[in-house]
Amino acid sequence: MLVNGKHYKTIWIDKGGKIKTIDQNLLPFKFKILTLDSSEDVITAIKNMTVRGAPVIGVAGAYGIYLAIKEGIIKGYRGKELDSYTIKVSKKILSTRPTAINLKYSVERTLEAYYFTELPEQKLLNVLNTANQLLKTEEEASYKIGINGLRIIKNLFNKKKHKELNILTHCNAGWLACIDYGTALAPIYLAKTEGIKMHIWIEETRPRNQGARLTAWELLHNGIKHTIITDNAGGYVMQKGLVDMVIVGSDRTTINGDVCNKIGTYKTALAAFDNKIPFYVALPISSFDLKINNALKEIPIEERNSDEVKFIEGYNKGINKVLITPQKSKAKNFGFDITPARLVTALITDKGIIRPDKKQIEKILL
Amino acid sequence: MLVNGKHYKTIWIDKGGKIKTIDQNLLPFKFKILTLDSSEDVITAIKNMTVRGAPVIGVAGAYGIYLAIKEGIIKGYRGKELDSYTIKVSKKILSTRPTAINLKYSVERTLEAYYFTELPEQKLLNVLNTANQLLKTEEEASYKIGINGLRIIKNLFNKKKHKELNILTHCNAGWLACIDYGTALAPIYLAKTEGIKMHIWIEETRPRNQGARLTAWELLHNGIKHTIITDNAGGYVMQKGLVDMVIVGSDRTTINGDVCNKIGTYKTALAAFDNKIPFYVALPISSFDLKINNALKEIPIEERNSDEVKFIEGYNKGINKVLITPQKSKAKNFGFDITPARLVTALITDKGIIRPDKKQIEKILL
Repeated sequence: MLVNGKHYKTIWIDKGGKIKTIDQNLLPFKFKILTLDSSEDVITAIKNMTVRGAPVIGVAGAYGIYLAIKEGIIKGYRGKELDSYTIKVSKKILSTRPTAINLKYSVERTLEAYYFTELPEQKLLNVLNTANQLLKTEEEASYKIGINGLRIIKNLFNKKKHKELNILTHCNAGWLACIDYGTALAPIYLAKTEGIKMHIWIEETRPRNQGARLTAWELLHNGIKHTIITDNAGGYVMQKGLVDMVIVGSDRTTINGDVCNKIGTYKTALAAFDNKIPFYVALPISSFDLKINNALKEIPIEERNSDEVKFIEGYNKGINKVLITPQKSKAKNFGFDITPARLVTALITDKGIIRPDKKQIEKILL
Repeated sequence: MLVNGKHYKTIWIDKGGKIKTIDQNLLPFKFKILTLDSSEDVITAIKNMTVRGAPVIGVAGAYGIYLAIKEGIIKGYRGKELDSYTIKVSKKILSTRPTAINLKYSVERTLEAYYFTELPEQKLLNVLNTANQLLKTEEEASYKIGINGLRIIKNLFNKKKHKELNILTHCNAGWLACIDYGTALAPIYLAKTEGIKMHIWIEETRPRNQGARLTAWELLHNGIKHTIITDNAGGYVMQKGLVDMVIVGSDRTTINGDVCNKIGTYKTALAAFDNKIPFYVALPISSFDLKINNALKEIPIEERNSDEVKFIEGYNKGINKVLITPQKSKAKNFGFDITPARLVTALITDKGIIRPDKKQIEKILL
C-alpha cells in the first residue's frame, strides 16, 4: 500500500539480497526502513515488535532461519553441526511471540524445506525459496480476503442506500501486519478503489496503541477517512448507532471458530453482539490451529513486560516515554484474549466467507 | 483516607476560611494542595478536572456559588444585581460538566438556600451552610455505601472460604471522587479494616487514566494490593476466572436502573455479564435522575477535547505530554456511556442494596 504516494510492502528482499522491513516502532512519527542482517536481528525485531502482525511475523521468522543457515555456512558448519545451529535459532525464533500460530506454521514449513535436501548450499536455497513462497502466499491470501470481504461491504453499502458506511476496527490488521493489503483492512482498501464511501472508527488498542499509531497511519496515507477513539469508547459509538460493522484480524483461530486476537477484541465483540452489529474476523487460513479444542485453556497467551502498561511512548521533541501510573504500582500486560465463536458473525478467509463452526471450517480446509 | 500516613479529605475549608482541594491533575506524580479563591477558580478546576468525581464536583460547585456571592457583596451588589451575578455564575458552574447529575442537584439546593432569605450577608451564610451540609451529606453517604457494600464483600469472602478476593474496578470512584471513602472503593476501604484479603484489578480508564493514576495512588497510600491493567485486559482476566466481583461508580442513574458512568463501563459490564461475575454499581442516592426515561437518548454525554485522546500526560523529568497518534488523524473523546440495568447485579446505595429496577428505586427514594 501507499506511503507518501509510493507503494511499499512490509518486508521484502532488495536487489542486493538484503532483507528489508519498516521499523513499526517508530511509526507514525518516523518512517524508517531497516535491514535485517542476521538471525539475531530478526529475533530482536520480532520480540520488540519492530516487525509485528501475525502474517508478517511468520514470514520474518522464515527469513530469520534463512539468515541462520547462512551464518552457519560462513562459520563452516556442515551436517549435524549446521542442523543443531539451525534448530537452536529456529527455537529462539519460535519463542519470540507464542500466541500467533503463523510463526509456528512458517518455522515448520521452513524446516521441512531445510531437511528436504542434504547439501548446505542447497538447504539455504530451499529455505530462501520457502520463505519467498510464504511471503507470496500471505500477500495473495490478503488480496483474496480483500476480495471476499469486499462483497460484505458492498452488500452493506447497498443496504444503506449508498450512505457512508461506519466500520470499526481494533488493533492493526492492515498491510503493516501482513505483506500488503492486510486482513481486516484488505476489504476496506479494495472498497476504497470501488468508490464506496466509508468512515473507519479506530480503537486505539492499548497498551501498544497499534490502532492509534499504525492503523491511523495506514489509512491516512491511503486516503481513508477515520477517527481514533479509546478502546473504552467502542461500546458507546455502537450504542449510539454509529457503527455498521466491525472487522478485526486473528492471531490464531480454532477449529470451533474461536478467535484469539489482540487484547480487547473480546470486549469489542461483546459490544457488537449486544448492539446487533455484525462482527467479522478476517484471516488467512494459515491462522487456523486445528490442534486446539479449548482456546481459553490451550492457547498460550503472551504476557509482555508490564512496563508497556506503566509507560507510554509518544512524540514530544522526539520519541519519548512517560510514566502513567504510580511508580510503585504493579501492572500486568496480557497480549491477547479469546473471542468465542458465538460472538462472530462470519470468518472472512482467503478461501471464502464461512460461519465460525467446525463443519464449515473443516470443509474449507479440505 | 490516607496520604503518606496522614488523613485527608478531597475538599475542605481550612481554619482561615479558605476552600482547599487536592490538585488531581498532578496525581500520582505530585501531591499538591490548592486554594480555590474565587468562583472562577472553581469553574476552571472543575472544567480541567483538577477537581473531579461526581460527588466532589457537586460540593465544589456549591462552594463556587458561595464564592460568587462573596464576590458580589464585595462589588457592592445588592438585590437584583446580586441575584443576576449569582445566577450567571451558577449557570457557568452548571455548564462545566454536563453528565454527572450531582452538580445540578447541588446548584439547585444552593440556590434554594440563596433565595430563602433577603439580606445578602444572610444569603452568603445560608449558602455556606448548605455547601457544608452537602459536603457532610456526601461524606456520610460514602460511609453508608461502604457499610452496605461491605456486607457483599464479606459474603463473597466467606463463600470463597477466606481466600483472597479479586475485585475489578473502572475509573476512580474512590475518596478522591467523593469527600472521603468513595463510592465503589468505600466498601473496599472498610473491608480492609476488617482484615478481608483482597486484590484489586484496576482498569486504567483511558483517555484520562483515572484508574491508573488516581485509583492506584489511593490504594497504594492505603495499603491495598492492586494491579493495573489496560481497559482491554478487563475481559481477559474475567475469562480466566481471576475476578470475583466488579464494582464501579455512577455519574447519573435513571429510575429504571440504567447507569451512566465513565466511558468503558459498558464494555466492562458486558464482560462481567458474559462471565457470570456480579457487577455492582455504588452510588449515593443523590446520583439518581428521576426525570430520565431513556438514558441513551436523554442524558447529555460530555464530549471533551479530542487532544485528551491524541496526547497523553505522564512523567518524564517532570509532567509532560506526548502525542500518540498521527498528527493529522482525527479523534473523538466521549466521556461516558450507558450500562443498561439488565447488566447490573445490584445498586449499592447509602439507603441500602437494591435491584436496579423502577419499583425498588422508587421505594428507596420515598
